[in-house]
Amino acid sequence: HQQLRDQALEKASLDATTSDGKRIQVFANIGSPGDADQALANGAEGIGLFRTEFLYLENDHWPTEEEQIKAYSHVLKAFQNKPVIIRTLDIGGDKDLPYANLPKEDNPFLGHRAIRYCLANPAVFKTQLKALLRSSIHGDLWIMLPMVENLSEIQETKSLLDECRRELTQKNIPFAETIKVGIMIEVPAAAIYADVLAKEVDFMSIGTNDLTQYTLAADRGNEQVAHLYDAAHPAVLRLVKKTCEAANQAGIIAGMCGELAGDTMMAEILIGLGLHELSMSAGAIPEMKEQVRQIHSTSAQKRADEALLQGSADAVRQSVNPSF
Amino acid sequence: HQQLRDQALEKASLDATTSDGKRIQVFANIGSPGDADQALANGAEGIGLFRTEFLYLENDHWPTEEEQIKAYSHVLKAFQNKPVIIRTLDIGGDKDLPYANLPKEDNPFLGHRAIRYCLANPAVFKTQLKALLRSSIHGDLWIMLPMVENLSEIQETKSLLDECRRELTQKNIPFAETIKVGIMIEVPAAAIYADVLAKEVDFMSIGTNDLTQYTLAADRGNEQVAHLYDAAHPAVLRLVKKTCEAANQAGIIAGMCGELAGDTMMAEILIGLGLHELSMSAGAIPEMKEQVRQIHSTSAQKRADEALLQGSADAVRQSVNPSF
Ligand SMILES: [Mg+2]
Ligand SMILES: [Mg+2]
Repeated sequence: HQQLRDQALEKASLDATTSDGKRIQVFANIGSPGDADQALANGAEGIGLFRTEFLYLENDHWPTEEEQIKAYSHVLKAFQNKPVIIRTLDIGGDKDLPYANLPKEDNPFLGHRAIRYCLANPAVFKTQLKALLRSSIHGDLWIMLPMVENLSEIQETKSLLDECRRELTQKNIPFAETIKVGIMIEVPAAAIYADVLAKEVDFMSIGTNDLTQYTLAADRGNEQVAHLYDAAHPAVLRLVKKTCEAANQAGIIAGMCGELAGDTMMAEILIGLGLHELSMSAGAIPEMKEQVRQIHSTSAQKRADEALLQGSADAVRQSVNPSF
Repeated sequence: HQQLRDQALEKASLDATTSDGKRIQVFANIGSPGDADQALANGAEGIGLFRTEFLYLENDHWPTEEEQIKAYSHVLKAFQNKPVIIRTLDIGGDKDLPYANLPKEDNPFLGHRAIRYCLANPAVFKTQLKALLRSSIHGDLWIMLPMVENLSEIQETKSLLDECRRELTQKNIPFAETIKVGIMIEVPAAAIYADVLAKEVDFMSIGTNDLTQYTLAADRGNEQVAHLYDAAHPAVLRLVKKTCEAANQAGIIAGMCGELAGDTMMAEILIGLGLHELSMSAGAIPEMKEQVRQIHSTSAQKRADEALLQGSADAVRQSVNPSF
């Protein structure tokens, strides 16, 4: 196995195309600027998910515009003109932030979190949006909104972004004109009516961790329901397909940045469902690229179609790995 | 308004058919045997949801087979040969049961609840299933399983039911041969792959309260996200449609027993989505029957199709009620 890993690492800097020549982009998920170099060294063709919580969690105050710019710019510069998808603040749920005064909730995963918190606290949100705009001159920035469940959340965020743009323009502070704005697909509703949301965004990225826990009503951290929690459930895969179809129809990009995206056993099905971009922890990239090179897209599509009709996640996993 | 209510009550015992002659069955949700008479007086054509938690919550011990039989038989007898859908134990989530030793969970709504608890505690479950089987000789019993998210849960329950049947047969205890076994559609996955589940069940009933909170990732009891929680969200309506189509394809019945089912403003859309059975609190039945009589199924279908393409629940509500 070590030999296979070495071989994969050697070819990590090359593109990953299926055996019939379909290009699949392999991106990295990172949690701090320091992770950028390792991502590049492992062959990341972009950042599919840059989590910004570290900025907020490592401080005892709201991070300033300047503190944020430093972090975002570092990654944008490191990745030169490769896409860097930065996710706006995703607190609440299982991530508390002492100075944010988050409410005590009975079911925090179904509560006041992520984009919900940000839209309710526009001062906090605008500081981040301005920092993102100001960083955008250093590379190819894509802004991604977590936990979107309806159209208004996108529209409200875009209004805030426009407000930020106007304020920066008044002060003659530059920012890129070409920033993409997209959403995570992690609330089931967003996948179910992805065709409606797709018209308002530049890209969509499927976050399978949350999408799975909501679609299956099974807390991803609860051992009592761990036997029910599996992103390979046919219903989750159907939502992946629906999202890809909606993106395709709207002419925008659909990627995936949850755990499932780095699962080599499932890669054939994911490609068969229509994904062209997979984002994962840096260490998983070389093997995934090698895996992609073994896949033929015709048989991938056949496997995907079969998976959608299975009765359970276990049945799906057995279909790609009889020894499962 | 009082006059309209009186008029509705007068005609409550009659069937509800749309203006173009399509029959819609209106059932009642009840929480204890004592509610049966009022349901009948209000024109209930059956029980769409008989919650059995009261039996467990009002006692300090697991209710015995005999205690349960008494409750179930009372309702079955009162409804003679009208359908009585009894839901198996739905504890956990927001319903604690001190003597059940439920685990403390971070997100109980995404936890060890309902069918999950019952399958993990077969002795508790079998007592209820036997009580249901033994009660079945008194009327038209349909057994409904809450929180199903995959095929195995249905199959395991059916095995337990067969075990119970064998044990009763050995003791010469009678039960009906014709009991229907169905599921609540309240976990998004169940709606999303309803076509797969439909092959294993005799009926499906959409529980919009839980379905909405999972589909929108918004705790139905959390004020902080109350502005996001609305069963009229187009994504929830799409799941309703998907369920109706799957049921139709499989030749089984699809009903609805959540709050949405009793929302007269939404009745036109619900009928347009393909529902033939709506179950609600007894008091809402007369007005709903009157409402159904005003609806034409062609325009209902048009309204439903439009609703599925809206951007938000508010937009859906405005489409049926411009003053919303
Ligand atoms: Mg998430
Ligand atoms: Mg429920």
